[in-house]
Amino acid sequence: MMKNNSGCNLFTLKQTVAYLKKHNNYIILTHASPDGDTLGSAYALYYALNEIGKTACVLCPELIPQKYNYFARKTDHVHMEGASVVAVDVADEVLLGALREEFGGKIQLCIDHHISNTHYAENLYLDPSAAATAEAMFDIIERMNVNINDITAKALYTGLATDTGCFKYSNVTEKTHRIAAELYKYNLDAAEINRLMFDTKSKRLLKLEQMVLTAAEFHFDDRCVLLPVTSEMQEETGCSGTELEGIAVISRSIEGVKIGITVKQIEKEEFKVSLRTYPPFDASAICRKLGGGGHIAAAGATVNGSLSQVKKLILGAVKSALEEAYAGSSTDQ
Amino acid sequence: MMKNNSGCNLFTLKQTVAYLKKHNNYIILTHASPDGDTLGSAYALYYALNEIGKTACVLCPELIPQKYNYFARKTDHVHMEGASVVAVDVADEVLLGALREEFGGKIQLCIDHHISNTHYAENLYLDPSAAATAEAMFDIIERMNVNINDITAKALYTGLATDTGCFKYSNVTEKTHRIAAELYKYNLDAAEINRLMFDTKSKRLLKLEQMVLTAAEFHFDDRCVLLPVTSEMQEETGCSGTELEGIAVISRSIEGVKIGITVKQIEKEEFKVSLRTYPPFDASAICRKLGGGGHIAAAGATVNGSLSQVKKLILGAVKSALEEAYAGSSTDQ
Repeated sequence: MMKNNSGCNLFTLKQTVAYLKKHNNYIILTHASPDGDTLGSAYALYYALNEIGKTACVLCPELIPQKYNYFARKTDHVHMEGASVVAVDVADEVLLGALREEFGGKIQLCIDHHISNTHYAENLYLDPSAAATAEAMFDIIERMNVNINDITAKALYTGLATDTGCFKYSNVTEKTHRIAAELYKYNLDAAEINRLMFDTKSKRLLKLEQMVLTAAEFHFDDRCVLLPVTSEMQEETGCSGTELEGIAVISRSIEGVKIGITVKQIEKEEFKVSLRTYPPFDASAICRKLGGGGHIAAAGATVNGSLSQVKKLILGAVKSALEEAYAGSSTDQ
Repeated sequence: MMKNNSGCNLFTLKQTVAYLKKHNNYIILTHASPDGDTLGSAYALYYALNEIGKTACVLCPELIPQKYNYFARKTDHVHMEGASVVAVDVADEVLLGALREEFGGKIQLCIDHHISNTHYAENLYLDPSAAATAEAMFDIIERMNVNINDITAKALYTGLATDTGCFKYSNVTEKTHRIAAELYKYNLDAAEINRLMFDTKSKRLLKLEQMVLTAAEFHFDDRCVLLPVTSEMQEETGCSGTELEGIAVISRSIEGVKIGITVKQIEKEEFKVSLRTYPPFDASAICRKLGGGGHIAAAGATVNGSLSQVKKLILGAVKSALEEAYAGSSTDQ
C-alpha cells in the first residue's frame, strides 16, 4: 500500500473493491452544490452495495435538486457507529459543506478523479485519467462483480454525461465512450436524462440571460466579452446560485471571443469574477493577478469594489495578457 | 439483390463495398444546406477511396461553411463521363438543390440513414438504425479494409456528433458510442470539433436570439411557446438560412413547454412554421393540419398569410391537440 506525505493511503482498484466488500455499513457523502457526477457516482455505489447485501445511505450537504429524482431516492439512515464513511467526488474536505462538522477527519475512503484532491481521507482511490468520478465508479462496480441494474446505469450515465458536457469536452477519452456504450445496454432513456440535464431552462433564466446579453460589453477588437450579472438582474428575475453557472458558458461561446468574463454581484461591493479562455490565454494566470486561481481554461476570483472598479481591474489584467500574446499589435480599451 | 417497387436495388453492406471497389472514378454528392453529417460522410468516403487509389471528388450544391475546413478540403474535379455518382445522406433527389439539374436521375448509389429515403437512386444502401449516415459510412469503410487516417476520423466524428446533438438525442445507440470510441484512437481533437460545431455563436445570432426571446409568446398555461422570427429581425441582425435553425431548439428547451413553435418569415405573406414537441404530442400530426409534415418530435409546414393569421392557424391546431391530450382540463388562448 502506497502512503504519501499526508499519511493518506493510495488505494489500487483491487484494494478499493476489497474495502467495499469487507465492511457491512457505509455512509456515502457527496460534495456541496451537488452535481450529476457526485450524485450519480454516490448513488451508483449505494445501489451496488445494496446488491451485495450491505447497508448504506447517501448524505448530501444540501437538498438534492428535484431533477435528479430519477435515480436519487431517499435512503434509510445508517448509524455512524461502526459505519465506514466514503466520500465520492469530493476533492477537498471543505467541499463537504454542512457535513464537514460531523464527518471532517473521519473519511475512511475517498473515491475521486480530481487531480487536485487534497488527500484528506484515510484511503484514497484516485483516477485522474477518468473524465468523471462515474468513470472510476464504473470500474469499481465492474470489478466488484455486482449486477448493474437500470437505476445504477442511469446514475453512472448521469455522472459521465454531466462532467463532460455530454461528451463534448477535452476530458473525454476512448474509455468514456466505451463505458457509455456499456451503459446503453440497460434501460437508460439517455435522451430524457440529457434533456433534463442540458436542455431545460427556466423562463426566469431565459429572462436573466437576455438582460445579461443586453448589457454585454465587447472589448479589445471583440476578442473579449464582459457579461455583468448585477444584483438587480438577480432580484428582478429571481435567479440565484447554481442557476447562474451557465452564464460563464455563454461568455466563451461567442465567435471570435478568446477571453470571456462574467462579473457576478454577490454583495453591494463584492463581485465574483469568472474567466473562460481559449489558447494561448491562461485564465488561471489572469485570475491570480486578482487573488484568485483555477484551471488554464476556466478560473475565477472574488474582487471587492464597485462594478466599475472591478471591471477596470479585470480588464487591466486581460489587457496585459493580450499585449503579451499579441506583442506589437493594437488593442483598444 | 432486392429490388423494390421504384426499381431501386437495395444494397447490402457487402454489395456496397464491392461497388466502391469496382469502379475507378467517383463523384460524391452532398445535400443542400450542408450539415456535418452529409459533409463528414461524403469526405470520409472521399478519403477512403483515395486510400485505395480511386479518383474522387466531393460536390456540394452550396458553398461549404468555413467551419468545416478542418476536413472539407477542395477536391479536384472528376469528369462526369465514366464516373460513378454517389449521393451521401441525401434522402430525396430534391435535396440535391443546384446539383439536381446535372445529376438528377443519374445517381448510381445512395448511402443514407433516413427512413424517409425516397429510393430515387439506382442502388441504395440504407441503414435506418444508424444515428447518422456517418455511422453507416464507418461500417462501409471498416468493411472496405481501408486505413482510417486522422482526417477521415475527424470527418466521421463530425457526422456522428452533429446528427446526435453531441450524443444527446434519442437516435444514439450503444453502437454510436462504440464507433465514437474507435474514432478516439486517432488524432481527433474532438473537443475542438465540438466547440466549432456546438459552442460557437456569432454576435449577430446572439442579437437575433435576444430579439426573438423578447418577442416570445407563452400560451396555454405556458405549455406552448411561440417564437416569431420576422423579416425585420433577420434584416436588422443580418442572420439568415441555416443560422436560424437553432431557434427551434430554444423553443423546446424552456422548462414546462411541451410544444415549441417557431414562425419564421420567408416572404411578406409566407412563413415557415417549425414545431418541436414532447410526448404525448405529435408534431407531425399537428403540422399535417397545416399541409406540412415531419417526425413525431420535430415537424414543419409552410403557411401563407400575415403573421397574425399564421399564428392564429398554428395556435388553433395546437389548441386542438392540447384539448385531445388533456380532455376536460382548461386551456387558455
